[in-house]
Amino acid sequence: MTAKILDGRLVAEQVVARAAGEIAASDRVPGLATVLVGDDPASAIYVRNKRRRCVAAGIRDLHRKFGADVTQDELAAAIHALGDDPGVTGILLQLPLPPHLDAAALVSLIPPEKDVDGLTETSAGRLALGRPGLRPCTPLGVLELLDAHGIALSGAEAVVVGRSNLVGKPMAQLLLRRDATVTVCHSRTRDLAAACRRADILIVAAGLPGLITADAVKPGATVIDVGIHRTPDGLRGDVDFTAVRTVAGAITPVPGGVGPMTIAMLLANTATAARLPANAYGATFLSS
Amino acid sequence: MTAKILDGRLVAEQVVARAAGEIAASDRVPGLATVLVGDDPASAIYVRNKRRRCVAAGIRDLHRKFGADVTQDELAAAIHALGDDPGVTGILLQLPLPPHLDAAALVSLIPPEKDVDGLTETSAGRLALGRPGLRPCTPLGVLELLDAHGIALSGAEAVVVGRSNLVGKPMAQLLLRRDATVTVCHSRTRDLAAACRRADILIVAAGLPGLITADAVKPGATVIDVGIHRTPDGLRGDVDFTAVRTVAGAITPVPGGVGPMTIAMLLANTATAARLPANAYGATFLSS
Repeated sequence: MTAKILDGRLVAEQVVARAAGEIAASDRVPGLATVLVGDDPASAIYVRNKRRRCVAAGIRDLHRKFGADVTQDELAAAIHALGDDPGVTGILLQLPLPPHLDAAALVSLIPPEKDVDGLTETSAGRLALGRPGLRPCTPLGVLELLDAHGIALSGAEAVVVGRSNLVGKPMAQLLLRRDATVTVCHSRTRDLAAACRRADILIVAAGLPGLITADAVKPGATVIDVGIHRTPDGLRGDVDFTAVRTVAGAITPVPGGVGPMTIAMLLANTATAARLPANAYGATFLSS
Repeated sequence: MTAKILDGRLVAEQVVARAAGEIAASDRVPGLATVLVGDDPASAIYVRNKRRRCVAAGIRDLHRKFGADVTQDELAAAIHALGDDPGVTGILLQLPLPPHLDAAALVSLIPPEKDVDGLTETSAGRLALGRPGLRPCTPLGVLELLDAHGIALSGAEAVVVGRSNLVGKPMAQLLLRRDATVTVCHSRTRDLAAACRRADILIVAAGLPGLITADAVKPGATVIDVGIHRTPDGLRGDVDFTAVRTVAGAITPVPGGVGPMTIAMLLANTATAARLPANAYGATFLSS
């Protein structure tokens, strides 16, 4: 058996086209404030890519750049101002920040209706309580990818490997809301392979290259690899792709699987946020 | 084999004594505002019990009673006033509310630092993100009960049956934070008994009397029954106690198991909240 390849690039294009269509049809032009602090080269590349993709989709580019020596108070004031600015419909604070800054406190200043990364406590709470809200882009992208390929979630055994705030934990919440039976595994899980073999849908976001081998996969399972690592052999995920594709029913490649979905969902979230009134408590909007 | 009985009354007394000791040793007298709306007899009994227990522990009783015809705006104004009142250190809005009121919107007006029931979006978000915050009383009580009996959580397979905002979902988060491998099951789970048999620790909060029978329990497992139902044969839980106690290693009785823990944790949360400065973002306080 050779697994079906779940192409994220294709689905991401569809998501971006849909977001661009919504933006073109809307009265309100979304404006995304990408906030970049310091000179981390990886962050600079990520932010540049995000800005370029946003502009192509009809989103106004409201980039803010700060030096590595910016103070907590200066950055807080800037985020407050972006929060108050009606032309700014989305705010993305690129992480990590330099160590002298309190990232959690700064993220908390983003109004939930502009929280296009879904990282504030309010957004996390809305997800946990099953209320409408903006969701973190990567797990939302995984869900979109599964849906695009018609993979049924209701009643399925889903296993999430990894419990980060960015991926593992919100992924589990999203799957639970879609009626999967959800298990979260992590570094303290006693028999990881046995737990993973229970999965109809296995989502791996552990940050360890090649962690999941063929013996951890039930024949025919869907395997989603969130990991991405630079290795001497090129980009690799958390899943041993070559071995696992002979067992799985479907699998995401690395690169070209989950990666493109993350940025696509940022665009989708930005389009969604622009449709929200300020302080949209209880508003009905895109939720998964 | 006959399971050890996990007595909640005994542990609850210890928790209450500890909270009373903290209150007696503190400069600030906690004041709990219990907000009761309308004439639901069960709610009236619950609130009366909570008030009595709080007073016995040295908490100031700041009860507020509203008629069933109170408007959303009137209740919102009252909660705002309690939020602003420095003598009120905890606010408990007794649910359910009459159907003309938007309970979620009213709960959201409780400042997170006074949210002794742990029900606001901010509290749920802090729990989901693993940050300090006030946790919902019932799952916190289950954790306390497990700890009091020395039941190891790290690496254990924990299965939670039920995914309510009040119990199932926060329970899963608390267990995950304590390094258990956590599965959440619910009405759409395909083979509930098989999933439950994986559990070293099985926590049942499904709201269905006698749902869990002996075939769903691994020999030696710890079984925590959150359900409570009035039946012709007296109070019963979600677990078939008579059958399961012959298989399990430890089990909570109904009544006298989780029930007493819930109110004890309300007192503990109220003592904790009184130690918090207003707007205690990022404060280090009791968290699980």
